[in-house]
Amino acid sequence: MIVPVEGGITAPKGFRAAGVACGIKANGKLDLGLIASDDVASAAAVFTTNKAVAAPVIVSREHLAEAKGYARAVVVNSGCANACTGDAGLRVAQMMTVEVARALGCEVEEVLVASTGVIGVALDPRKVADGIIAAADALGGHHAEAARAIMTTDPFPKEHAVKVDAGAGKSFTIGGMAKGSGMIEPMLATMLGFLTCDAQVEPAVLQRALVEACDTTFNAITVDGECSTNDSVFALANGASGVVIGDREYEALVEGLRAVCLELALGIVRGGEGATKLVSIHVTGAKTYDEAKRAARAIANSLLVKTAIHGADPNWGRLVAVAGRAGVAFSLSGARVVIGDTVLFEHGRPFDERAPQAAEYLKGKDVRIEVNLGTGGPEDATIWTCDLSAEYVRINAEYRT
Amino acid sequence: MIVPVEGGITAPKGFRAAGVACGIKANGKLDLGLIASDDVASAAAVFTTNKAVAAPVIVSREHLAEAKGYARAVVVNSGCANACTGDAGLRVAQMMTVEVARALGCEVEEVLVASTGVIGVALDPRKVADGIIAAADALGGHHAEAARAIMTTDPFPKEHAVKVDAGAGKSFTIGGMAKGSGMIEPMLATMLGFLTCDAQVEPAVLQRALVEACDTTFNAITVDGECSTNDSVFALANGASGVVIGDREYEALVEGLRAVCLELALGIVRGGEGATKLVSIHVTGAKTYDEAKRAARAIANSLLVKTAIHGADPNWGRLVAVAGRAGVAFSLSGARVVIGDTVLFEHGRPFDERAPQAAEYLKGKDVRIEVNLGTGGPEDATIWTCDLSAEYVRINAEYRT
Repeated sequence: MIVPVEGGITAPKGFRAAGVACGIKANGKLDLGLIASDDVASAAAVFTTNKAVAAPVIVSREHLAEAKGYARAVVVNSGCANACTGDAGLRVAQMMTVEVARALGCEVEEVLVASTGVIGVALDPRKVADGIIAAADALGGHHAEAARAIMTTDPFPKEHAVKVDAGAGKSFTIGGMAKGSGMIEPMLATMLGFLTCDAQVEPAVLQRALVEACDTTFNAITVDGECSTNDSVFALANGASGVVIGDREYEALVEGLRAVCLELALGIVRGGEGATKLVSIHVTGAKTYDEAKRAARAIANSLLVKTAIHGADPNWGRLVAVAGRAGVAFSLSGARVVIGDTVLFEHGRPFDERAPQAAEYLKGKDVRIEVNLGTGGPEDATIWTCDLSAEYVRINAEYRT
Repeated sequence: MIVPVEGGITAPKGFRAAGVACGIKANGKLDLGLIASDDVASAAAVFTTNKAVAAPVIVSREHLAEAKGYARAVVVNSGCANACTGDAGLRVAQMMTVEVARALGCEVEEVLVASTGVIGVALDPRKVADGIIAAADALGGHHAEAARAIMTTDPFPKEHAVKVDAGAGKSFTIGGMAKGSGMIEPMLATMLGFLTCDAQVEPAVLQRALVEACDTTFNAITVDGECSTNDSVFALANGASGVVIGDREYEALVEGLRAVCLELALGIVRGGEGATKLVSIHVTGAKTYDEAKRAARAIANSLLVKTAIHGADPNWGRLVAVAGRAGVAFSLSGARVVIGDTVLFEHGRPFDERAPQAAEYLKGKDVRIEVNLGTGGPEDATIWTCDLSAEYVRINAEYRT
C-alpha cells in the first residue's frame, strides 16, 4: 500500500534540505538547493542522452562511478545551466562539489551536482560558493524552499512523498521534487528530478528500480519533444527507516518510486510552457510494448495533434495519420480512436455525428485519448503531453536579451 | 545548362492540362485538375510512407504496376483527401480513373489519381465525374488553372519549368506543379507534386531519376514534421521532344528534375502554415550523409529552434542541443554554429558579443544556418524549413466545423 504524506524530499528519515538565494537569478529569488543525507546513502541516477552534455552531468557521472554508487548530498542551482561552457564550466561544477564536501565533512566524490537555466552562460563561482555555505548552514526540513530553489519559470513547485508498506508491519518513505520546463530567459527546458528514500537498498538495486520507475513516468512525458543538455534524475536511499529492500520488498520500492515520479512528471507536463491541458495518449492493440510507446510518443509530439487538442477539435484523422507514420505495425481497417469515452473511428468508419460531444470533452483540463493500432496485438503504453498554444510560441520566440 | 522557361506543366511538348471547379470546394474555387500526355508516357511516382494510406494512393500504385510504368494522364482533386474513407473511397478513386480513360480514349490503368483536402470525408462521385468531363473538354495550355485547382489554402500556386541542355545541340523541357500545406478546414498538410517531361525515358530510369531528384528537394523540406496520408509525386515523360535519355543524358535529366522540384519544394516551405521565413539548415562535418540529413531534419523540426528563429533570436545553444540529441556522431568541442555569416559558437566557446548582428540577420525572410557536428567528417546535407508562429497554432487549433 502506498499512501501520500507531507514533507517532500525531507519526508524520509535522515534527510535534510535547504533552498537559498545566492544571486544567480537577477530577481533575487531562491536559486540554490541542497539535499543531504545524515549518513552515506546508496545513490542512483539517470542522465540525459544528449551528446552536448552539461558540466554538472559529467561531474555527477564521474562521482557516482568513483564512489561506487554511494553519496551524501546533491547540490543544484537554477538560473544557469552550466552547459556549453567548456573547461571553465567543468571547474565550477567540480568546485561546487568540493564546497559541499567541506561544509558537510564528506568525500568530494560523495557529492552530486545539477544545474538548470540558460545555456552557454558562465556560472559565477563566487556566488555558488557563498550559496553552498549558506545552504549547508540552513539544512533542515526545508523541502519547500529546496523545491522552489530549482525552479526557473515553472509556474509552480513540484514535490511529492509517499509512505510505502513493505510487508510484515514495516514501512519506508520516498520523497521527491522536480523541475520542468519554464524560463527566466528562453533556454532549453531542463528536466531535473530528486528522490530521497529511507529504506536500505544496494546501489545496483536502487539503480535498477530507478530506471524501471522512470520508464513509465519521467520517460513517458513530453512537452515539446526536446531532450536537454542537463536532464538528470537522482535517487538517494540512506536506510534510516531500518527497512531493508530484498527480493520480497523490491516491487514495493519500484511502486513507491513510480508513485512519486508519476506525480512529479505529471506536474511537469501540467506546468509545460504555454500548456492549458494535461493529455494522456494511450496506445493499445500494439504488437510490442516498444511499438506502443513509439506510436504514443509520435502522437504526443505531433504539432497537428497538439494544436487540435488546444482548439478542442476532435480531429481523429490527425491521430490516425500520425499512428500510420510512426514506423510501427498499423492496420487502418482495425484501428480505433476514442476521445474520452467517445468512439470517433472504428472498423474503417468515422462517427462524425459524435464529434460535438468529443469537442465538449476536449474543453476540459484533463484529456484522455486512446488510439488502437488495429494489429490485434496485446501491448499498450501511455505517454503524457500537453497542448500546444500560441503562448508556447510567444515564450520561446522572445529574444533573450 | 538549365534555363527557366514559362508554361509550367504544359511547357514540355505534347502535354495539355486543365483546371475546373466541380463543387467539391464549397466556395466555388477550382478544385479538379487534369494533366494529359498526347501519347502514352513513361511514368514514375513516389508515395507517402504512411501506413494510413489514402484511396487514390492505393489506386495509383496499382495502376502504375499494371501498366508497367506507363501512363497517359493524372487527375487530381482538392477539397477532399479521400483518406480513411474505406471501400467507398476506393470505389470513387477507381471511378475517377475510369472517367478519365473514357474521356481520353485510353486504358484505365494508364490513368493515375491524387486527392488533397480534409481527411475522413466522402468524395462526391457525381461532382468529380462531372468535373472530369469538363476538364477533359478544356484540355490545353491551362497550366495555371491546373496549378490553382490543386490548392487547398496554399497562399499561392507553385509552378516551375526548365529547359535542359542534353548536349549535341539537343534540349528537352521539364515542367512541374505542386501543392503544399494549407487548409480550407484543418486537415493534414498534403504534399502533391506533378512533373511533366518531353524527353524519352525508360520507366525504370525515370523512376530512379525521380527518386534521386526528390531526395534533395521534396524529401529535404519540412513544415511541421508530419507525413500525410496522401503525399505523392508523379512524373510523366512522353518523348515528344525527340530527345532520348541514355547514360550520357541521365545526369541532365536528374539535374533538370531537381531544378524543378527544388523550386516547387521551396515554394511549399515559403507557403507553409503561418510561415514568415524560409530557413535553410545546412549540417556539415558529419560522418555520413545520412547522419548529416538526420541532424538537419532534427534541427529543422525542433520547436525551440523554429520559435527562436521566428523571434529572430540567435539562440545557438538550442541548435547545439538538438544536434546533440539527434542520434548522430557529435563532438561538442569541435562543433560550430554559423547564422548567416556570423560564427556564434566554435571550439567549445560562445561569441555572444556577435549576437546582435546575428539577430539583425534573422529578421530577414531568407535565413541560412550552418551547424558543424564537429566530428571532422566530410559529409553535409541541407534541409529547408520555416519558422513556427502563433499563426500556425491559430490555423491548426480552429475547430473544423
